[in-house]
Amino acid sequence: MTDSHFSDEYDFRLEEVCAKIERAGAARVGIQLPEGLKRHGPAVAGRLRELCGAESVISGDPCYGACDPALDLLDMGCDLIVNFGHAELPGMPIESDAPVLFVELAAGVDVAPVTRKAAVRLAGKGTVGLVTTIQHVAALPVAVRTLEEAGLKARVGEPGGRAVHPGQVLGCSFRAATSIADEVSVFLFIGSGHFHPLGVALASGKDVVVADPYVGEVVEINDLRERILRQRHAAITRAGDAADIGIIVGTKPGQRRLKLALKLESMAREKGRRACTIALKEMTGDALENLGLDAYVSTLCPRAAIDDYFRFKVPVLTPQEFEILLGERDWEDYVFDEFH
Amino acid sequence: MTDSHFSDEYDFRLEEVCAKIERAGAARVGIQLPEGLKRHGPAVAGRLRELCGAESVISGDPCYGACDPALDLLDMGCDLIVNFGHAELPGMPIESDAPVLFVELAAGVDVAPVTRKAAVRLAGKGTVGLVTTIQHVAALPVAVRTLEEAGLKARVGEPGGRAVHPGQVLGCSFRAATSIADEVSVFLFIGSGHFHPLGVALASGKDVVVADPYVGEVVEINDLRERILRQRHAAITRAGDAADIGIIVGTKPGQRRLKLALKLESMAREKGRRACTIALKEMTGDALENLGLDAYVSTLCPRAAIDDYFRFKVPVLTPQEFEILLGERDWEDYVFDEFH
Repeated sequence: MTDSHFSDEYDFRLEEVCAKIERAGAARVGIQLPEGLKRHGPAVAGRLRELCGAESVISGDPCYGACDPALDLLDMGCDLIVNFGHAELPGMPIESDAPVLFVELAAGVDVAPVTRKAAVRLAGKGTVGLVTTIQHVAALPVAVRTLEEAGLKARVGEPGGRAVHPGQVLGCSFRAATSIADEVSVFLFIGSGHFHPLGVALASGKDVVVADPYVGEVVEINDLRERILRQRHAAITRAGDAADIGIIVGTKPGQRRLKLALKLESMAREKGRRACTIALKEMTGDALENLGLDAYVSTLCPRAAIDDYFRFKVPVLTPQEFEILLGERDWEDYVFDEFH
Repeated sequence: MTDSHFSDEYDFRLEEVCAKIERAGAARVGIQLPEGLKRHGPAVAGRLRELCGAESVISGDPCYGACDPALDLLDMGCDLIVNFGHAELPGMPIESDAPVLFVELAAGVDVAPVTRKAAVRLAGKGTVGLVTTIQHVAALPVAVRTLEEAGLKARVGEPGGRAVHPGQVLGCSFRAATSIADEVSVFLFIGSGHFHPLGVALASGKDVVVADPYVGEVVEINDLRERILRQRHAAITRAGDAADIGIIVGTKPGQRRLKLALKLESMAREKGRRACTIALKEMTGDALENLGLDAYVSTLCPRAAIDDYFRFKVPVLTPQEFEILLGERDWEDYVFDEFH
């Protein structure tokens, strides 16, 4: 492998990783990368061999977060798993003290230009809350300064829940937004994709402006929030006459909410519904179709039910939406599902 | 759940299963079913609760054999995993003596009519070897009798490799065919699908006639064998100029051939190829594309490389095909990959 295989954008911090591999005395390491960086796995493996003589096994299975360390790499004779691109989740139970090293990766893209563009759109709107995902947290001070130079007030929320950096949000944890929702007029999300800013909007109740530093675009997502809420309402309604309901519990270490799933199963039965508990690693349309139930409640990553809405032929609800279906919660009290 | 949810074709042997659940003192059991029977999971769970008070968690992830017991159900508080539809694989290493109960299911379909139809086609061809998959092994004596009544000689091979019943073949184990290949003129495969009879043809070098008891059809697969061999030859040729090769090792307990994978990786390097080892639970087209390598060698279930040929954009070879690519084996010595 040559360095030409490497990303221009990310520094994989391999000297630092090698020092930790040597300190752990690991002869073979497991390498895990998020989907967008998977193709750098072979180059990372090659460099680790050159730098510290470690052999590698690369995990090819999908990985969407630190909730999903590839513990099966330990069965492949790996002494250490190196999970790139995610921050360790505080308090996540990893069985048997599995040796997992989480290596956060900072995106090299400059956030200042798109933040300047966003500042024009945000002028006169009052205090702006800044939120982002792990790869841009190191760039938040630059974004704050850029907003302030444009005469705006900026606030960055303290981390909480599963996030560890100020301003950081995860698909299952929006505390950095909700904790300052009362003090800001609007949120500015720095990053790409729709799910995280949508989660900020649903969890905080505030408008969110998205600034994508990769394409340099600034968009508002109010229409998206309304559309998603209509979808969620429709899903609850469609699940209304479901005869058989599957309560889904995740098998990934950081997505196991077994107690919650069993509680929902009991609750369903008490309300006269037929329900059973289904364990899944990946919630795919095929898996749900093969099981053949009429509706599902997902206790997995909240993103799974909402983001993949159109991939599922039957309704898939979040736990809180299921409470609405069972009459245990009002639609007016709709809340976004989060891991606590 | 009501009994009306149950299959007409299969008897799930739940009284017997309950006796074993009670003997094991299991309060919560994990239920695992092959894809075609997944939709009976909720009814099975309901009946187990009625019969012996056991709570259940159903595995919704794909399961294609006894090589893939859902050990993650143990993390869901299950004291026992009940794997329906597969025979235990002798000698398969299941870590930590995981409590898995394998419940073989016999298909209720009568094999006599389609065997009579096949007998007409086989008249004058000499001794017929009978082979089938687990769900029809109990019906093989009926098939033997039917062939004999038609004036044919029939032979059923002793089990070996990973098979435990006379005449039984698996996607990774064709010993019941190869062990009697010299003594028969042709094989009759009882069952549906193309992969198993194709494996019999490739592993034994004999012609195979397929008798599908579900649709009552009898077909020969010589054309298919030739077509697949052309595909395999093309895959080897296409992999010829691959710069980066991924050696895939399976993480399912019965598909882990780590030693073989590491040997192939070394062999590739010795021949001046860039290679790395990739761990995968499911080999999907998406996973291979995200990794972005030019060619792969699969040490998973042999079926994965061959059956999914058209789902992969880059060549995926079996270990023996990779030996041909590296000049370690001649095309004339092509053999089908089996687990030993």
